[in-house]
Amino acid sequence: MPRIVKHPELRRAELLDCAQALFLARGYDHASLNDVIAEAGVSKGAFYHYYPSKEALLEALADRFAQAALAQVKDVLDDPDIDALTRLNAFMTRSRQHKIETAAEGWALFEALFRPENLVLFHRINTAAVTLFTPALARIIAQGVKEGTFKTFDPEGVADMLLQLGAATHGIVARAIAGDSKAEWDAAIRALERRIKLYEVALDRILGLRDGSIRLTERGYVRAVMTARRQAGAGQISKRTRRANVTGNS
Amino acid sequence: MPRIVKHPELRRAELLDCAQALFLARGYDHASLNDVIAEAGVSKGAFYHYYPSKEALLEALADRFAQAALAQVKDVLDDPDIDALTRLNAFMTRSRQHKIETAAEGWALFEALFRPENLVLFHRINTAAVTLFTPALARIIAQGVKEGTFKTFDPEGVADMLLQLGAATHGIVARAIAGDSKAEWDAAIRALERRIKLYEVALDRILGLRDGSIRLTERGYVRAVMTARRQAGAGQISKRTRRANVTGNS
Repeated sequence: MPRIVKHPELRRAELLDCAQALFLARGYDHASLNDVIAEAGVSKGAFYHYYPSKEALLEALADRFAQAALAQVKDVLDDPDIDALTRLNAFMTRSRQHKIETAAEGWALFEALFRPENLVLFHRINTAAVTLFTPALARIIAQGVKEGTFKTFDPEGVADMLLQLGAATHGIVARAIAGDSKAEWDAAIRALERRIKLYEVALDRILGLRDGSIRLTERGYVRAVMTARRQAGAGQISKRTRRANVTGNS
Repeated sequence: MPRIVKHPELRRAELLDCAQALFLARGYDHASLNDVIAEAGVSKGAFYHYYPSKEALLEALADRFAQAALAQVKDVLDDPDIDALTRLNAFMTRSRQHKIETAAEGWALFEALFRPENLVLFHRINTAAVTLFTPALARIIAQGVKEGTFKTFDPEGVADMLLQLGAATHGIVARAIAGDSKAEWDAAIRALERRIKLYEVALDRILGLRDGSIRLTERGYVRAVMTARRQAGAGQISKRTRRANVTGNS
């Protein structure tokens, strides 16, 4: 059979699919780069050409996840017939739905980012996501300013600020994951719910809107996303063999 | 001469003084832990007992800096006769004055924190500072809520949020430092000024105050703090010998 030369983007996507499947099955920590390479059935050299490290794979997966999330809200962003507040709320609702739908997968792939030893990687991935989402959010806010309903001198700054505040919940999520007991877990969920509620009112006011105008959360949302994590984790644990030298859970 | 056994806290403070003097003279990157130990005139074992790494020294110095900054506002926090808005503005004014006064020293000691390879250390130090300042700021906000002038359901959350937003300027400061040209420098100062202005209005509104109630910045403040950095850097460079193997500036 002749060797088929694939388009680099196609090859890249295939390798990512392969890594994703393996990370989902075993968990990011329990699959080595060599496992991924073996599963992909390519030479090490070929693989390293695309993804020089396991971290690079996770960054690429995170980018694909973020791109998919943005694609989910594209029609909301492009609809020419809705005002800014409707668009902003639709954007948030759709993002929440997408997050709940992909939560189990997301946790299985990215939970490692909430451990102390991966803080740098978390921030690198977060910066990329903020950079991707800021223009979309800024455009909605600028529309509101133009319509006279939102009051701010800096739509892009508000967009960036809101996305940064999202990342500022990293510590709360990390504590939730690190804690083992049901009580710690519930406390972390309550802390997250309270914080998102605060952001909700904060965003209303920062944009000069009445309290309750923007919906960043709804009853049960945080719990739904966080619970998906435990299911994702349980699924993996039944399949994987714990390797003491790669876990490093703290 | 008999060996004098010093109180551990006193010994600890002396070692910190010694490290601070050396870091100020040569810059954090250009002084090794061995240099500090030699300068302190103690055994390695004794030194490691107190500070097991150069990072531990920098963390302790940062903690001392933060404690000193908090001490500077103690009378503002304790004054029983002022309302919450007056107290909050006095707190911010005093903090700004202190920051300008200590800016050259602060840059010389902590500039390294704004380089990518020290991101984890930056976050660890920032978390400690946020933890130290949150109760003071939360108490002021709670006073305002009690007085009926501030409107929020979560004084501690607002305090934490504001301090987190301070850390979110890390990227802008890092870009300012990484940039070499006057134009990049000026652009970074303008970006910082604009961002603090945004935080100022945001904080007003988050607390249900009229725009312009709280002063987080004033004309020339950002430039004064940032300019102190260049002076601090120039002072060090004239004294130190560059060591290629420890710089790693990027």
